[in-house]
Amino acid sequence: MNLIQSLKWRYASKRMNGQKVPSEKINTILEAIRLAPSSMGLQPYTILVIEDEELKKKIQPIAYNQPQIAECSHLLVFAAWDDITPEHIDTYISHTASVRNMPEEKLADFKATLLNTTEKNSKEQNFNWAARQAYIAFGTGLIAAAAEEVDATPMEGFDSQALDELLHLKEKGLRSVTMMPLGYRDAEKDWLASLPKVRREKDKLFLVK
Amino acid sequence: MNLIQSLKWRYASKRMNGQKVPSEKINTILEAIRLAPSSMGLQPYTILVIEDEELKKKIQPIAYNQPQIAECSHLLVFAAWDDITPEHIDTYISHTASVRNMPEEKLADFKATLLNTTEKNSKEQNFNWAARQAYIAFGTGLIAAAAEEVDATPMEGFDSQALDELLHLKEKGLRSVTMMPLGYRDAEKDWLASLPKVRREKDKLFLVK
Repeated sequence: MNLIQSLKWRYASKRMNGQKVPSEKINTILEAIRLAPSSMGLQPYTILVIEDEELKKKIQPIAYNQPQIAECSHLLVFAAWDDITPEHIDTYISHTASVRNMPEEKLADFKATLLNTTEKNSKEQNFNWAARQAYIAFGTGLIAAAAEEVDATPMEGFDSQALDELLHLKEKGLRSVTMMPLGYRDAEKDWLASLPKVRREKDKLFLVK
Repeated sequence: MNLIQSLKWRYASKRMNGQKVPSEKINTILEAIRLAPSSMGLQPYTILVIEDEELKKKIQPIAYNQPQIAECSHLLVFAAWDDITPEHIDTYISHTASVRNMPEEKLADFKATLLNTTEKNSKEQNFNWAARQAYIAFGTGLIAAAAEEVDATPMEGFDSQALDELLHLKEKGLRSVTMMPLGYRDAEKDWLASLPKVRREKDKLFLVK
């Protein structure tokens, strides 16, 4: 399938059949998420990869008992950094210098830009920006799943505070923003599986100048 | 190229060569954006497609004179709805009923959910949610461009208020959130073109449970 075909094939699966997704497919989806575009390359988020059945069962009531949480193969939780700190930027600059085999001093201007941009923002503004970045990675993961013919559900309907507590995210400087159960659709049980996709018409979504 | 190869090929082009992107490639990129995943299918954003050279020149100083604005073939501006109103939801429900060939009454529960979710939020909360949705479409566009071997620059560095004024977005109930020049890299002039991509290591980005 090409990208357009994958986007047409995918939908927000409401029921899954419990079948496990092979680890090579999971690894491809995670690698796409890792390579996703990210502003200034910072990737201000962490993704939890949850396969443990007991933990999935604990998460289910936090997500209004949506069945995909238990029926999926792997549950991805996208958690954005709750702030962008100078420590985050230090780590990133060191890593960049190491990957690009250059002295950190060569990145001084870039580092100053990162610090200026994030220090003038409030913690909440930095979190909101980090959350938007996480959504780019999230969208990339949804597309990568479709390309592997793995079903996924973009899922925002959950109590993020309760999930953060259960997963000890606050202590890690993280806040959950969205979830993605990965698995295989149960087309018989899923009322949405056979319905046509609804998207705004081209002349309504785009304004050509 | 498969998706992983496309993600490795792409980067945030800092210089473009002015070459036009053929309209069939632009149409494929726009179609991918149109089909992008969107929470509850609402697509709470509009994308401006700007090819007009005069208008691009007016935008350039608003975006710190970044050269890609003038050097690109097409400039996409992603603008999120500044609120989610009952009128938006009415339009969406009517459209859904029409595409799925069902009476609107069958969508009453879904409509109530949409109204409940958005009416309890402040205008700013709804805008922030719409902006996150726009970032899924934005990420999808970046991937679609790479799949077509078209270069793109994810661009948040601009004065969004000034851009909203220039493009009369406020009157349309929109706020610009991000931009995407589309074109072809000028590898000789672009210092970033030859540098290795920096991404967090798998064991740092993912927490396996």
